[in-house]
Formats: sequence, C-alpha cells, structure tokens
Amino acid sequence: MKNRIADDATVMDHVTVGQSVTIGKGALIYPNVTLQDNVVIGAYCIIGEPVQAYYANDRHEFAATLLGKGSIVRSHSVIYEGVTIGEGLQTGHHVTIREGTTIGHHCSVGSLSDLQGHLRIGDHVRLHSNVHIGQFTEIDDYVWIYPYVVTTNDPYPPMGKLVGAHVCRFAQIATGAIILPGRTIGENALVGAGAVVTRDVAPETVVAGVPAKTTGAIRDIRDAEGNALYPWPEHLKTYRGYPWQEKE
Amino acid sequence: MKNRIADDATVMDHVTVGQSVTIGKGALIYPNVTLQDNVVIGAYCIIGEPVQAYYANDRHEFAATLLGKGSIVRSHSVIYEGVTIGEGLQTGHHVTIREGTTIGHHCSVGSLSDLQGHLRIGDHVRLHSNVHIGQFTEIDDYVWIYPYVVTTNDPYPPMGKLVGAHVCRFAQIATGAIILPGRTIGENALVGAGAVVTRDVAPETVVAGVPAKTTGAIRDIRDAEGNALYPWPEHLKTYRGYPWQEKE
Amino acid sequence: MKNRIADDATVMDHVTVGQSVTIGKGALIYPNVTLQDNVVIGAYCIIGEPVQAYYANDRHEFAATLLGKGSIVRSHSVIYEGVTIGEGLQTGHHVTIREGTTIGHHCSVGSLSDLQGHLRIGDHVRLHSNVHIGQFTEIDDYVWIYPYVVTTNDPYPPMGKLVGAHVCRFAQIATGAIILPGRTIGENALVGAGAVVTRDVAPETVVAGVPAKTTGAIRDIRDAEGNALYPWPEHLKTYRGYPWQEKE
Repeated sequence: MKNRIADDATVMDHVTVGQSVTIGKGALIYPNVTLQDNVVIGAYCIIGEPVQAYYANDRHEFAATLLGKGSIVRSHSVIYEGVTIGEGLQTGHHVTIREGTTIGHHCSVGSLSDLQGHLRIGDHVRLHSNVHIGQFTEIDDYVWIYPYVVTTNDPYPPMGKLVGAHVCRFAQIATGAIILPGRTIGENALVGAGAVVTRDVAPETVVAGVPAKTTGAIRDIRDAEGNALYPWPEHLKTYRGYPWQEKE
Repeated sequence: MKNRIADDATVMDHVTVGQSVTIGKGALIYPNVTLQDNVVIGAYCIIGEPVQAYYANDRHEFAATLLGKGSIVRSHSVIYEGVTIGEGLQTGHHVTIREGTTIGHHCSVGSLSDLQGHLRIGDHVRLHSNVHIGQFTEIDDYVWIYPYVVTTNDPYPPMGKLVGAHVCRFAQIATGAIILPGRTIGENALVGAGAVVTRDVAPETVVAGVPAKTTGAIRDIRDAEGNALYPWPEHLKTYRGYPWQEKE
Repeated sequence: MKNRIADDATVMDHVTVGQSVTIGKGALIYPNVTLQDNVVIGAYCIIGEPVQAYYANDRHEFAATLLGKGSIVRSHSVIYEGVTIGEGLQTGHHVTIREGTTIGHHCSVGSLSDLQGHLRIGDHVRLHSNVHIGQFTEIDDYVWIYPYVVTTNDPYPPMGKLVGAHVCRFAQIATGAIILPGRTIGENALVGAGAVVTRDVAPETVVAGVPAKTTGAIRDIRDAEGNALYPWPEHLKTYRGYPWQEKE
C-alpha cells in the first residue's frame, strides 16, 4: 500500500518513512524520526518534539526517534526526540512520551498518560489512561498499570537526586495508587486501588491502604466461584487472550 | 444564521449539518456524523473518530454519531463514532468520549475527562474536569461527579469480565474518589473526597475514607448557619439555579 | 531576530506581537492578546480562548490577555482571554489556564494541568503535571505542587458559594493530595502524598493520611546522611539551583 500523508501534515527533512505509513491531518514530524512500516500517526500528533535545549540554540541537533512496525499513535499525542519504541505500540489520545525513554514491543499507553522521560519499559506492558510515570522509573515485562496511578521520584521534595521506582514482571497496580520514590513492586504483586506505597512490596503479595499495608497473598484470591485467579501468567492467557510468551 | 465552517476544517462525505452550526479551525468530522442546529465544534476537535477495527479494514463502515441541538464541544476534544448525545451538551477541552455511549440532555463534561465507552448517562448530569468513567458504567439523571473521580470496572485485574458501577439519581461523588467495579452509589448519596468505595453505598448516606465507611446521613449535614443542605433537589434549585424538573 | 509565524497559524486582528516571537503550526491567537518579546507559542495552542458569554453574543468584547517576555507555551495548550502572565512562564503540553487568572514571573505549569480560573498565583511557583487548581485558589511565591494534586472549592457540593484554598510561601504539596475548600496550607508546610486535607495546616508542619493528620515538623526531616533538609529556602538553593531571591 502507498503511504497516506495528509496534505496539511508537516514532515521535516531527515525523516525516514517505511511502507504503508499513515500520517494524519496536521501531524508534525520533526527531523531524525523513523516511522517503520504500517505506522499510523493520528491527527495533530507531534513526533520528535524538541527538548528544552532547542529553545536556546539555533542549530539544535535532534536525537533519533524510532517508532516500530505497526505502531498506532492516536490524535493529539506528543512523542519527544530521543524516544525508541518497539513494534505494535498502541496509544490513546493526548498522550505525552518524553525524551530518553525506551519502550519494548506490543505495549499500550492509554489516553492522557504522561511518560515523563528517562524511562525503561519492557514488552507487553499495558499502561491504562491517565497514568503518570515519573522520570527514571523502570517497568518490566507484562506489567499492567491502571488509571491515575503515579510513580514518583523525589524523596524529599524538592530535592535534586531523583530516584525512580521499579515495577517487576507481572505486577498489577490498581487505579489511583501512588508509588513513592525508589520503591520496588515485586513480581506478581498486586497494589490495591488508592494505595500509597511507602515501602517495597514483596513478590506475590497484595497491599492496600494509606499508607499501604500487606493484606494477603495473591495465591489466596479467588473469584465468586472459588477459582484461584493468580498468579498472573495463566490468568492473562485465560481471561484476556493476552498475546505473550514466557521469555527465557 | 449561516453555518461557519473554518477553511482548514475537514468535513468528510455523509455528514449531516443543521443550521447555524460552527466548525472551528482544523476540526475533523468523519462520515455518518449528524450535527444538529446551533452545534459548535471547537478548534482541532475530532468527531466520529473511528474505533480500532478501522485500522484493519479498508472499507470500514462508520457507526452513526449524533450531537444534539446547541451542543458546544471545546477544542482538542475527540468523540468516537457510535456516540449519541442529547441537546445542550457542554464540554471543556481535551475531552474523550468513546464508542457505544449514550448521553442525555443538558449534560456537561469538564476538560480532560475520559469517557471510556459503552456508557449510559442520563439527563442533567455534570461531570467535572478530569473524570474517568470506566466502560459499562451507568449514571442516572442529576448526578454530579467532581474532578479526578474514577469509576472502575475490572474486579480482579486483569480479568476479562468487566462490571460497571451504577450511580443513582442526585448522587454526588466528591474529588478524587474511586468507585470499585460493580458498586452502586444510592440515590442522593454523598461520597467524600478521596474515598475508595469498596461496597455499595446506601441511599441518602455519606461515606468517606480508605476504604470508605458510612459517616452519617445527608439529612444531618448543615451549613455554618445551621441550615439543612440536603437532600439535593431543593439545594440544587436554591444554590445553583440548576435547570431541572422532577421526572416521575 | 525576526518573528517566526507558521503559515497555517491564525492570528486575529488586534494582537500585539513583540520581537523574536515564535508562533507554531496551526496556533490560534484571538483578539486583544499581547505576546511580549521572545514568547514561543507551540503548535495547536489557542491563546485568548473566549469565555462562555462569547457563544451567546455576536459582538463579544475580548478581555486583554498578556504573556510576558520569554514565556514558552507548549503544544495543544489553551489560555483563555483575561489571563495575565509574567515573564518566563514555561508550560508543558495540553495545559488549560482559564479566565480571570494572574500568574507572576518565572512560573512553570506541567503537562495536562488545569487552572480553573479566577486564580492569583505568585512568582517562582512550580505546578507539576496534571495539577487541578480550583477557582479562587490563591498560591503564594515559591510554592511547589506535585502531580495530581487538586485544590477544591465547593464546601457543600453542589453549593453556590465557592471558597478557594490558600497555599502560603514555600509550601510543598506532594503527589495526589486533595485540599478541601477554604483550607490554608501554612508557610513552609509539607503535605504528604495522597493526603486529604480537611483542616488548616500550620506553618512548618508535615501532614499525611486520609483525613490528614500532623505527623511532625519539617525541621526534623533528615536525609539518609542525617542532614536537615528543611526549611525550604536553603534547600531549594542547594539542591535545585532554583532561581530565587528573598523578597521584601
């Protein structure tokens, strides 16, 4: 298929565009961006947005920005220069992804989510709507994070040394939880809605409350029919048809 | 009055436009959209945004989208195909309303609110800024929901069976409250700021805290001068001049 | 330097533009706006957005809107008519600043923040991403407010008399805190993440929890090496190189 680039989109010099790429109405693509095959850029998106230094320098050198095959970025989203994203990304609308961030394959980022930059995000990670990921957070494969979750990074506000959180494989963080700076959410753990996590969360545990306390083990959680729901890998496969395969 | 359609707006085929309609700078109207008389579409809005299936099908059939008389949709908002909205809607900026949603007459939806789709929302409902309404939530007439409230729908994240909340007539949900999946907020109830609602809330009660507990009855709430403030219908009429009339 | 105004930007009559001003792709500048020297308006921003009365009146008189020297407003942001902003403002993306608001010099407002109007904000104030400032809030100099903080204004929702909060100099409000209507956050105070502030907070104290309770004094907070971190002025200077000087 031919590329479809809207008449009123702006594609600057030094942009590399694969095959069957769609660039929507009014989209703005800055230099040194690569859009691989089958990428869709929604209306009024900005890809390769310059960092702060651009405003103080007439000869700004744009860092490389890459969007992997088949990624769909929905309208009004902004992806900064210096971001590398794998295949099959899906975003909602009004998303921001800032510089120095690497995102793996087959991830999704919901509407209004704000990825603050200098992040390392694995494969098959799902960030729901309106998630705020503070700078220097690390998120491993298969993590799901629900709306209005915030990972923070400033232990003694307003201190200079930012310390990101670390969310391990298959962890689930429910709506509105706040993760304090430098905390680790262990593998397969579940953080309850509205929890404020002030300490590390052990693998396979459930925490809830303000401040968050351990309320049980994920292996004890059952549905109304008494079926064990966790740990997650089998669960994800059964209920969601989630496209994953165990790595190493 | 003649219609005013900005030169750089895009109105696709099979769009029905009433009288005295305004379509702002750069707005994008997809097929099968109806804009009734006196509708205002702000700059850079997208109306009739296609669902996911569109990206996998060259001959996508757009579901019908309707915006009732006198509705004002402010800039950078996105309304999906398959949404039906009554007369006199007002939105803020950067709003998202997803597919399969029906909204009644004289509702308002504040800036940055994210209506996730498959919703049934009554008349005279006011959603403030930055409200997140999870799929399959039902909201009855005269409900007010304040900023950063989230209604969730996934009882055992990440489970497949989504269960929406139900918010009954005249209920008020204060800032930052989280409603867990499948919960009912009873008629005239008041949910306090920051509450996490894990159980059904009885009509005419006040709940607060994490998790939310009943703290009183709305009939006992008085202002500084000792005047009873609730139940809501009289209150809304007195203090806000709210345009409503009792519906059987 | 000459002004750089994108071909597809719309600058209406009665707009005053200084020197070395940049107006990005598709930006829309309404009448009676002043952009001082070195202002940068990002792509798809709207400056001087009309208030509600505009929709009911063919001859709307636009209130004056002023953006001070060197201010940078990033993409997709909306600033209403009747807003006055000092020098050196920095905003993120998708910001909303509503009418009747005055902001001092050298402030920053993060992505997705929603300033609801009729606000008085001092100098060197930093509002992080996704902050919601309710109408009639007052914020003094050097305050920092972190993501997802909400200041509310409706004591008996939905009452008619809106009462704003007051945040005093050097106060710090951490992520996700909710400030109830009319509360004062004292000078140098620290509000913990996720706190719901139902009472006034005394100067130099720390509060946390739902509802918020006093947990200590800021003078007792030390870092891992035992260094006192507060009060803020010295701290800001040491750790952040924050550009401030004592006033009066």
